[in-house]
Amino acid sequence: MASTWEELAADKRARINNSIPEEWRIQSLPAGDSSFDYPAKSGLLSDKELKITESSATDLVQQLAKGELKAVDVTIAFCKRAALAHQLLNCCHEFFPEMAIAQAKELDEYFETHKKPVGPLHGLPISLKDQLRVKGLETSMGYVSWLGKYDTTESVLVTLLRKAGAIFYTKTSVPQTLMVCETVNNVIGRTLNPRNKNWSCGGSSGGEGAMVGIRGGVIGVGTDIGGSIRIPSAFNFLYGIRPSHGRMPYAKMANSMEGQETVHSVVGPIAHSAADIRLFLTSVLAEEPWKYDPKVIPLPWRSAEEESIKSKIPGGLTLGFYSSDGVVLPHPPILRGVETVVSALQQNGHTLLPWTPYKHDFAHELINDIYAADGNIDVSKDINASGEPSIPNIKDLLNPDKEQIGMNELWDTHLKKWNYQSEYLEKWRELEEQQGKEVDAIIAPITATAAIRHNQFRYYGYASAINLLDFTSVVVPVTFADKKLDTKKEDYQPLSELDASVQAEYDPDAYHGAPVAVQVIGRRLSEERTLAIAEEIGRLLGNSVTP
Amino acid sequence: MASTWEELAADKRARINNSIPEEWRIQSLPAGDSSFDYPAKSGLLSDKELKITESSATDLVQQLAKGELKAVDVTIAFCKRAALAHQLLNCCHEFFPEMAIAQAKELDEYFETHKKPVGPLHGLPISLKDQLRVKGLETSMGYVSWLGKYDTTESVLVTLLRKAGAIFYTKTSVPQTLMVCETVNNVIGRTLNPRNKNWSCGGSSGGEGAMVGIRGGVIGVGTDIGGSIRIPSAFNFLYGIRPSHGRMPYAKMANSMEGQETVHSVVGPIAHSAADIRLFLTSVLAEEPWKYDPKVIPLPWRSAEEESIKSKIPGGLTLGFYSSDGVVLPHPPILRGVETVVSALQQNGHTLLPWTPYKHDFAHELINDIYAADGNIDVSKDINASGEPSIPNIKDLLNPDKEQIGMNELWDTHLKKWNYQSEYLEKWRELEEQQGKEVDAIIAPITATAAIRHNQFRYYGYASAINLLDFTSVVVPVTFADKKLDTKKEDYQPLSELDASVQAEYDPDAYHGAPVAVQVIGRRLSEERTLAIAEEIGRLLGNSVTP
Repeated sequence: MASTWEELAADKRARINNSIPEEWRIQSLPAGDSSFDYPAKSGLLSDKELKITESSATDLVQQLAKGELKAVDVTIAFCKRAALAHQLLNCCHEFFPEMAIAQAKELDEYFETHKKPVGPLHGLPISLKDQLRVKGLETSMGYVSWLGKYDTTESVLVTLLRKAGAIFYTKTSVPQTLMVCETVNNVIGRTLNPRNKNWSCGGSSGGEGAMVGIRGGVIGVGTDIGGSIRIPSAFNFLYGIRPSHGRMPYAKMANSMEGQETVHSVVGPIAHSAADIRLFLTSVLAEEPWKYDPKVIPLPWRSAEEESIKSKIPGGLTLGFYSSDGVVLPHPPILRGVETVVSALQQNGHTLLPWTPYKHDFAHELINDIYAADGNIDVSKDINASGEPSIPNIKDLLNPDKEQIGMNELWDTHLKKWNYQSEYLEKWRELEEQQGKEVDAIIAPITATAAIRHNQFRYYGYASAINLLDFTSVVVPVTFADKKLDTKKEDYQPLSELDASVQAEYDPDAYHGAPVAVQVIGRRLSEERTLAIAEEIGRLLGNSVTP
Repeated sequence: MASTWEELAADKRARINNSIPEEWRIQSLPAGDSSFDYPAKSGLLSDKELKITESSATDLVQQLAKGELKAVDVTIAFCKRAALAHQLLNCCHEFFPEMAIAQAKELDEYFETHKKPVGPLHGLPISLKDQLRVKGLETSMGYVSWLGKYDTTESVLVTLLRKAGAIFYTKTSVPQTLMVCETVNNVIGRTLNPRNKNWSCGGSSGGEGAMVGIRGGVIGVGTDIGGSIRIPSAFNFLYGIRPSHGRMPYAKMANSMEGQETVHSVVGPIAHSAADIRLFLTSVLAEEPWKYDPKVIPLPWRSAEEESIKSKIPGGLTLGFYSSDGVVLPHPPILRGVETVVSALQQNGHTLLPWTPYKHDFAHELINDIYAADGNIDVSKDINASGEPSIPNIKDLLNPDKEQIGMNELWDTHLKKWNYQSEYLEKWRELEEQQGKEVDAIIAPITATAAIRHNQFRYYGYASAINLLDFTSVVVPVTFADKKLDTKKEDYQPLSELDASVQAEYDPDAYHGAPVAVQVIGRRLSEERTLAIAEEIGRLLGNSVTP
């Protein structure tokens, strides 16, 4: 007899829990809202393991490459901490320490024999969003109906990371459909923010945000079609990059609305520093992903592009900035976040120019229509196949009342997008012509709120407008909400009903301590330059050093 | 009272004819099938004008840049020859010598004042396919219903060529819908091949093929979604490049099925030498087209990529080749063309490996389905708006019986395409792994036939499979059909009904002297490398020098 969706989900939860060895289990969950310090205090990790998991990836691969660290030791340390992370935050769809340790042993043997690392990521554990396929594992994507399907192929990115020496040990949680910015599904429930269980970890790469946030991972792989890398990065005080489409290999990854190409989902890393983001990107590009995935542009890492930014430091960058996109005003902590970055840059002699967001309302509406172009047939099919219900946020975000559009309407949409992108480039050129120099990037909010309370995420236009433009965007952690500094605005006239509802959510006490970030936006395929600017901002803020 | 479509078309033809000054008119058209030698014998062009129009673009811009030639003189020479071309071959939709000469005068004045050229194409006339928009001119695209619409914006490529110093003087003919490989429409009728009026000039950039073929232009701009740059190049003994999507700016050009993005039409040059193709590409890239057209990848001309090929010359290239795609066997002249290229390369020490075309039948069918994804609503609308009939080839090629597909079916198509492209890359990698070295390109037919007789073009899979792959492809002219060498195959068992009908068309006498070409296929965005290989093949064949 067929199982109910509840039984299938319960079975999956049990299987995830059973994958955690007895000795790594938490006997009683900590009291209080924050899990953030629990791993250090748990006694489960040795001092050496704590040190490993609190190192940067850049340091770890250097030590691994010199033989100063063993891949097995690094892997066990991260597996232990990831096991705690899952128990505290509910962030894993798959956890496979045995496979990871076996892989680590092989790498240690290779090193022993050849006296050199297999590649630039030799022995580094990397945590994967559930969309990435690993042979022999389940890819459920938070759909009950997908459970029990075991992968026989591997995503190109997994293959190339493996060639570079990376070790895999977990696939992390995503929201049902991937189309929302919080992480809830009917298989494992809700994933929590390490800093406060009342806050969201973000989404859709929310499992990665939580996992890397609590250092159960040092680099996590996320995807982004409307903020899904950048929002979990922001909500967990992490760096994250949304590369432009065609820079990183997406081939053979699972997806929601697979084959939808009007706005492409892209894949990229979430990490604790710009340097670790760079390590990931350079390591993947060194494997020539364009020879495996036809959508990847044959564009190796361009050091000259980075240098062109570094040559303007200190004091010579020209940057646009905006605090409001004219649709929804950010909460006070975010406004202060942008001001903090702008004034740090100005104090260091850089030129900051107000940027007028060009028709972001139009962009937000157009991308919403694109997401719903099939009248939600695809996601509804995957939800309905098991009888599970929709999660709360889906109804608003996917416009279920929309009908499928016709082919000629889709083609019109493509033209609208192309024209909008062209006009945005024209605005950028105009500012450059007016200034007589290059505008290197734009500083902006990535969300209207600091790490948000559950079920409150209503507006993702700060992220999604950038997806429509296919611009490169790097999230930089800035500060934390502060109830004393970030008082609620009095007598504010909301821009719209949506704006009013977002403003109503602000509560200085409830948000006290929540991570605040900005995004640094560069033109399409400007990963080298935009990351270099993000790194400099982190340096000025003092956020670029690992604790 | 509204005019009939016949009246509108007749009016347009009269307007084109009236744009030719009295003194450039041919009093009586030459007898015989070939117009090829007529310009030289006409007495209408001075010796200097003949020399100018028979120079390479590379030579012309050098002389213009030194002040050894005046832009006005170069422009008048090409305008005169283009006027003859139109009268002989029926290849212009727009001819505007006055505007061209005014532009040339401005450039000469600039040179006089500044003692330097305005850009790398200073004073060089470039002929444009009718899809390119020039302010103040009509873009009719061969649709009667588009007549009378005058452009108020300019295509990005036109703007950038203008900045580089190019002069515009004509927009050339295309077939109704652009979706066929011969050039016939109800506005001006049929465009002819300069070498033999019984042969097609190719299509859809057929006006460019004829115009550049007879040297009424030195570089022409075409577009290619299924062979439309490469087939006119092949049929007119010219070089032509199909750059990969995203290399050259297409923004603000007119198109048939505008907004269709499952397979992108691309824009590129047609010319008499690889050097002139390179001049065009480098000049456009120097203008940073990615700052104007968001679809263009920020990829300047990579000389290092060219050098990596040149370092393998002589004798170190590794090339795949195939003579048949397994769907339709090429006519004897084409089979001999491939053999000629293969043996010339082998004799020079290069490694030639048989390449098994991977599922080209699948590719051909998939791309045909993509062309018809809207059930031909778009093109039917433009045809029917004036009451004009369809041209003969449309019915077969556009599958008018097909119905519009739904959004989820389109997404499935995207996945099929992506998987196919991935598999093709895998085959390429496998051959490289087997050989232990890079496979630099693949040599293949571009059409199944030499320049074809009218209304006989039935199979364009040799071209379109490469569009589906989005590979870079450069056409190299090889030889001419020869009734003595290229005898009809006896006892051939056709692969299919389609193959049988293509074979039945071969007649050694009728095709005697028809141009024969091959295409050199490189992976996506390999313009520098693939063009360098094409240039070397031309050098070995002795075809790289202008007459």
